[in-house]
Amino acid sequence: MHRRTRHHRLWLLVGLLVLAGCSGGAPAEGGPSGGGEANLRLPDLASATFFGVVDGRTLLTVGLFIALGGMVFGLVQFLGLRTLPVHAAMREVSELIYATCKAYLRQQGTFLLILWAFTASVIFVYFKFLVGSGWGQVLIILAFSLLGMAGSYGIAWFGIRVNTFANSRTAFAALSGRPYPVHQIPLRAGMSIGTVLISLELFVLLAILLLLPGEIAGSCFIGFAIGESLGASALRIAGGIFTKIADIGSDLMKIAFKIKEDDARNPGVIADCTGDNAGDSVGPSADGFETYGVTSVALVTFIMLAVNPTVMAADAVAATQATLLSWLFFVSATMILASLGSYWLSTTLTRRRDARASHLDFERPLTQLVWITSGISIVVTFLVSLLLIGGLGDGTVWWKMAAIMSCGTLAGALIPELVKVFTSVKSRHVQEVVKSSHRGGASLNILSGLVAGNFSGLWLGLAIVALMAVAYLISLTGLGDLMVAPGVFAFGLVAFGFLAMGPVTIAVDSYGPVTDNAQSIYELSTIEDLPGIDAEIRDTYGFDPVWERAKHLLEENDGAGNTFKATAKPVLIGTAVVGATTMIFSIMMGLTDGMTANIDRLSLLYAPFLLGLVTGGAVVHWFAGASIQAVTTGSFRAVEFIADHIKLDGVTKASVEDSRKVVEICTQYAQRGMFNIFLGVFFATLAFAFTDPFFFIGYLVSIAIVGLYQAIFMANAGGAWDNAKKIVEVDLDAKGSELHDASVVGDTVGDPYKDTSSVALNPVIKFTTLFGLLAVELAVSLQASDLHVVVGLLAAASFAAALFFMWRSFYHMRIDAPMPSPERVRDDHNGVPEIRG
Amino acid sequence: MHRRTRHHRLWLLVGLLVLAGCSGGAPAEGGPSGGGEANLRLPDLASATFFGVVDGRTLLTVGLFIALGGMVFGLVQFLGLRTLPVHAAMREVSELIYATCKAYLRQQGTFLLILWAFTASVIFVYFKFLVGSGWGQVLIILAFSLLGMAGSYGIAWFGIRVNTFANSRTAFAALSGRPYPVHQIPLRAGMSIGTVLISLELFVLLAILLLLPGEIAGSCFIGFAIGESLGASALRIAGGIFTKIADIGSDLMKIAFKIKEDDARNPGVIADCTGDNAGDSVGPSADGFETYGVTSVALVTFIMLAVNPTVMAADAVAATQATLLSWLFFVSATMILASLGSYWLSTTLTRRRDARASHLDFERPLTQLVWITSGISIVVTFLVSLLLIGGLGDGTVWWKMAAIMSCGTLAGALIPELVKVFTSVKSRHVQEVVKSSHRGGASLNILSGLVAGNFSGLWLGLAIVALMAVAYLISLTGLGDLMVAPGVFAFGLVAFGFLAMGPVTIAVDSYGPVTDNAQSIYELSTIEDLPGIDAEIRDTYGFDPVWERAKHLLEENDGAGNTFKATAKPVLIGTAVVGATTMIFSIMMGLTDGMTANIDRLSLLYAPFLLGLVTGGAVVHWFAGASIQAVTTGSFRAVEFIADHIKLDGVTKASVEDSRKVVEICTQYAQRGMFNIFLGVFFATLAFAFTDPFFFIGYLVSIAIVGLYQAIFMANAGGAWDNAKKIVEVDLDAKGSELHDASVVGDTVGDPYKDTSSVALNPVIKFTTLFGLLAVELAVSLQASDLHVVVGLLAAASFAAALFFMWRSFYHMRIDAPMPSPERVRDDHNGVPEIRG
Repeated sequence: MHRRTRHHRLWLLVGLLVLAGCSGGAPAEGGPSGGGEANLRLPDLASATFFGVVDGRTLLTVGLFIALGGMVFGLVQFLGLRTLPVHAAMREVSELIYATCKAYLRQQGTFLLILWAFTASVIFVYFKFLVGSGWGQVLIILAFSLLGMAGSYGIAWFGIRVNTFANSRTAFAALSGRPYPVHQIPLRAGMSIGTVLISLELFVLLAILLLLPGEIAGSCFIGFAIGESLGASALRIAGGIFTKIADIGSDLMKIAFKIKEDDARNPGVIADCTGDNAGDSVGPSADGFETYGVTSVALVTFIMLAVNPTVMAADAVAATQATLLSWLFFVSATMILASLGSYWLSTTLTRRRDARASHLDFERPLTQLVWITSGISIVVTFLVSLLLIGGLGDGTVWWKMAAIMSCGTLAGALIPELVKVFTSVKSRHVQEVVKSSHRGGASLNILSGLVAGNFSGLWLGLAIVALMAVAYLISLTGLGDLMVAPGVFAFGLVAFGFLAMGPVTIAVDSYGPVTDNAQSIYELSTIEDLPGIDAEIRDTYGFDPVWERAKHLLEENDGAGNTFKATAKPVLIGTAVVGATTMIFSIMMGLTDGMTANIDRLSLLYAPFLLGLVTGGAVVHWFAGASIQAVTTGSFRAVEFIADHIKLDGVTKASVEDSRKVVEICTQYAQRGMFNIFLGVFFATLAFAFTDPFFFIGYLVSIAIVGLYQAIFMANAGGAWDNAKKIVEVDLDAKGSELHDASVVGDTVGDPYKDTSSVALNPVIKFTTLFGLLAVELAVSLQASDLHVVVGLLAAASFAAALFFMWRSFYHMRIDAPMPSPERVRDDHNGVPEIRG
Repeated sequence: MHRRTRHHRLWLLVGLLVLAGCSGGAPAEGGPSGGGEANLRLPDLASATFFGVVDGRTLLTVGLFIALGGMVFGLVQFLGLRTLPVHAAMREVSELIYATCKAYLRQQGTFLLILWAFTASVIFVYFKFLVGSGWGQVLIILAFSLLGMAGSYGIAWFGIRVNTFANSRTAFAALSGRPYPVHQIPLRAGMSIGTVLISLELFVLLAILLLLPGEIAGSCFIGFAIGESLGASALRIAGGIFTKIADIGSDLMKIAFKIKEDDARNPGVIADCTGDNAGDSVGPSADGFETYGVTSVALVTFIMLAVNPTVMAADAVAATQATLLSWLFFVSATMILASLGSYWLSTTLTRRRDARASHLDFERPLTQLVWITSGISIVVTFLVSLLLIGGLGDGTVWWKMAAIMSCGTLAGALIPELVKVFTSVKSRHVQEVVKSSHRGGASLNILSGLVAGNFSGLWLGLAIVALMAVAYLISLTGLGDLMVAPGVFAFGLVAFGFLAMGPVTIAVDSYGPVTDNAQSIYELSTIEDLPGIDAEIRDTYGFDPVWERAKHLLEENDGAGNTFKATAKPVLIGTAVVGATTMIFSIMMGLTDGMTANIDRLSLLYAPFLLGLVTGGAVVHWFAGASIQAVTTGSFRAVEFIADHIKLDGVTKASVEDSRKVVEICTQYAQRGMFNIFLGVFFATLAFAFTDPFFFIGYLVSIAIVGLYQAIFMANAGGAWDNAKKIVEVDLDAKGSELHDASVVGDTVGDPYKDTSSVALNPVIKFTTLFGLLAVELAVSLQASDLHVVVGLLAAASFAAALFFMWRSFYHMRIDAPMPSPERVRDDHNGVPEIRG
């Protein structure tokens, strides 16, 4: 197979032109024409010229340095956090948490490698035997998939390291009684993570674009993206299960033994702190990393496919592609600067006003940062677009593209506001949860929370549709002169806009685990009880600690962290459906040979496509069920262990042994759950891709749509229950009452809803889409070689494997205990306490 | 407008050829050719000949008499039930329940007329001003829509009347201590309702086909179907809300005051009994009536559109259409006979074995009946098909069609078995709910139930897909010689097959409310306490009453009723998606002018279609949220009222006044909730149909698919919680324990899930589809007359109205009470008891 064909096939893969393929050396019937090939060649970026002097290659080299600068900024912040003052008692706790996290991450690493082996074997078969790539090339592609996974994994590790510095420093800073540093430290940690994450991602993408030969750049992109989403999916799932087992286990002890939050005698607390990082920190960082990468790859692919000679003169195609690519990535780079500038501006404003203030509404500066960043990002988008592509097309293209992208950027600020309508403590829905539980106990508490989640599905769903509709309408006003299917490009740009303020979105999301940990560290350090501590702090750090005030500040700050954790979720979830759309459209363009054939099979009149649409819902519901099951069965074990081992009298702290055992329980169920779930998803993807490509398209659309609503519903119902509990605890000061017990039930039900099932859907949808592209290409190539029986057998075997793991995800994850006997139920009142709901 | 064009437009409407239209007298561009018109003409049934001697008209006249016979059978059963022996104390209670139901139904009647007025105004505008029909014709069409609604309403009333005879007779029969009559009376009541329902429906459809002039038959069909689904939607929604308010209100009292089920001192019990009828009896009967009608109309339409000269010689078209129509409806008629024969056979078997037995597994004879009916129906389907269409096509068509239809019939027996995997007391999922609550209280109870619901979404979803796939694959084997899109016809036949054993499906579903009521009537009659009652019964009825045994029998029988109520739900829900598919396909054939134009707009590459797919999820989630909200807020009021007014000491029964007040609360919130929800659905349908016809198609597909999974998830989660409670109460005998409290929380959360939101989705999806056809036709006609601005304004106004009612469905349905104050929460322990979760 000569080089030109290989090069072509790589782009095919990226663009997923699955019907165009030919396997080994056997060309398929109806393969692409020579004219089609030219369009898929990555253009020379030098063919785009800006300001009359700068070419695209130079421009993006500047972008590469901006990304490098972003990483340096993040590292500097990281080092700065490390040197902030902290008392040894608190540092020790945070180092213990970090050590536990490290052990967890190491085990996760092994598991990731196993899952990677599954995925890599498909990549290998595809490239080696179907594309016929050489060993060197295959190894490079595999290396990039490993690099992508390592990227998700590494950024997660970096996030945990930053957070476990920041948590104890925040707790210590609170002792001074001033709110400003309590706000500033977690935010600085978040900005460090967010900036490194986006910059690293952009750096890798630009490096592939600029430094690698075009011949393998395409496969490196796809390999990298698959690796990222594999890593993010597994980390999200396992982290989500881990954190909620620990959380529920600890929470239920509050009802059973009437002990306070983070009581050091509770052996579940260290696991809970670890979980905050394994779930709420690892999750968003790996997820954000993956989302940014996949969306970019989808847009690159789209530009290569949709800007073609059917819409413009053949000689203008390459220059237009190069211009759009350069514009897109340069906007990305300037967005990092926009986020950093906004952070500087917002911090300056806050510092001027609040540095010495004795009271601070912790949500205000975060909201301010989000809106400032959104505003500045939009202005910069328009400005950069005017400068770079002001002359493109009829001279109006620049502002249309900028406006479409700004729809997404605006959404990044608007969606959080909308989420607050359902989850903030001021929300009528949350108040309804409290009111209904007052008369109806846990029953009506749960029902009102379900109502909140469902209603949020309505309004957030309509908001996303409205946003996409506006983008689509703008795209109708002339972008059709530049590309095929401008509406699809518009959806991709919206998703890209969602992520424009990435560093800030990640920063406010990462704020939560730090504040949550800070509160716990305060309690676990039992610093107040150290002999001579007041004098020591005065002498060493130069201030008088104010203990009660510090506790109050940390609690308040945790509330703000909760809110922003809740608001960031739908932003990431939203990108899944909007971004997946672009990716799916790229596959469709492939399957229809650039929309010239088989279009009828993409319509509802083609029954397999319709059946695919129905099938997606089944898998989304299974995913939700299986992930909740892992949490439930793990929580049962954790509750059982903690209730049987907790000692309340005569000790101030739980034993290290007991604490480690709880961590073990969490790790065990997280990994077992993740393993079944991931392999279920993996084999289902293979099975459906091998069944029929158009069935598979229906399936992808369906998991994106049903998944979007399930995720929104679960995330916001969980948020509403969480804050209803906060109202009962803080505003009504009713800890220990039956109303409080009812609100804890709601909160614990919401735990896996909002932090396990809902948030993991985004990376799972993306992994399925990306990996499915490979699988569908494989299937079509085999079929083109008349290997129908092989494809059929592979589909059947994969389907059987998928069903096996789906079956296992409940039947092998059940609670390993006999049914309670009537005697046992009666005895419980005298012996081991039963947990009251 | 001359008659021929009118006639054409009527069929257009039925078939929803929305793009083909012309408004007033102005022909649209690109209207259908003369050749197209001929295909839409209802064929003369006489052109089909069977056995060489009988024509289609004669054949269906026989069918008409079979339907009549079915109605007579039902009425005879009804009269028989009435004359069964019953003690006055019990009869009085059942008559009180009936009187309360009557009052409720009367109020519902008024509301239905208001909702009908909204719908009728659209029908009127369409036919009078767009089609240009004469007054007489418009009035006939309106009359048929009213007749359809009256049908749903009337059959609901009939069901309630039958049940309120059967409930007290069942309770009385239990006193003899023999289980057989306790099983037989509710089943007989159910068969009476099921047979009358299906027979009446078939009678009306055949009457329209046989007796009305072809010119108006089409519009009568559509008017009738819209009326039916309007009635069913409203009755399902309101009944579902009513019953669950009463149920939750009564149930929570069990925890609060530790009183038994159906304690006569609890003023919520009469409302609960009324609710069992208003919800569980009215709902399935109206729903079944509607489903049967709509599915039949969809198939008729499909046959008229899809059997056309593009697939066969023009002169063969009419005869083939007539043959298929005659076959379809004659199979329907024989299915009534098959159900009655199966009932006779199954009852004979049971009577022989169990008439004198002292023990009876109440589920067994019901399962037996379902499987016997399924088997006999399949055999009859093949037999009738061989006899009637053995010679059609290449001679294999008969068994292919019969096999496809049998997929549905088999599903009618298989789906219930699958449902049991998630909801029966032997289910591992249900046992998991019990186990998890043992250590994790209400928290893990709820989570395990959510897991059960989600997993059932996987397996039931895959089962439905598999079923449709088999039907599709069979349709590929040659049905394409008879019609366009045979796959779609196959889906329609599957839905039809689902309903083949309609009388039995409805009968086992209606079994539940009777057994539930019977148990309550026993307690409410306080018959045991009547002086000299033993002697009185011995003297009057000739047997010695065995009180404890009677209670036990009624409780066991109620368990069987619960199970079959749960298993019937997914059957009706399944028809929504499978049947709606055929209906939607009919619209699509219209929009694509018989698949010759605009096919690209039905594909994912057309952005509005994709946006429609996203929009459906928003409305389904809103629907679930709004219906649960109505239950929550009503339950809050009911709990408040009952807790404040219940008297436990010195009285044996709650006052009539208090009982009436609880019924009032239920009625009030049911109607307010239903009003907002129905008008939200109504205006959303108008708005989306006016936006873009292909957007609307996407929307319809989306509500069918997302709705299917939401409904399955909610129904089975609810079923799992319900039976987990049964295990705790019966097997563990742990009433009053904390484990029991936790299981009651799960049950009450499941109440609106399984009996309000889930079950109402079926008629709502159908109403939206049917009414939307009219609306989309209206919009396209207006647009063809260049009235784009009018359409835009109508879309905007309808959308505003929809948003208003959606907004209201939460913000005007909130709990009308202030937030509890900290003092109040503390005081609750001393004053009015708070309900513990």
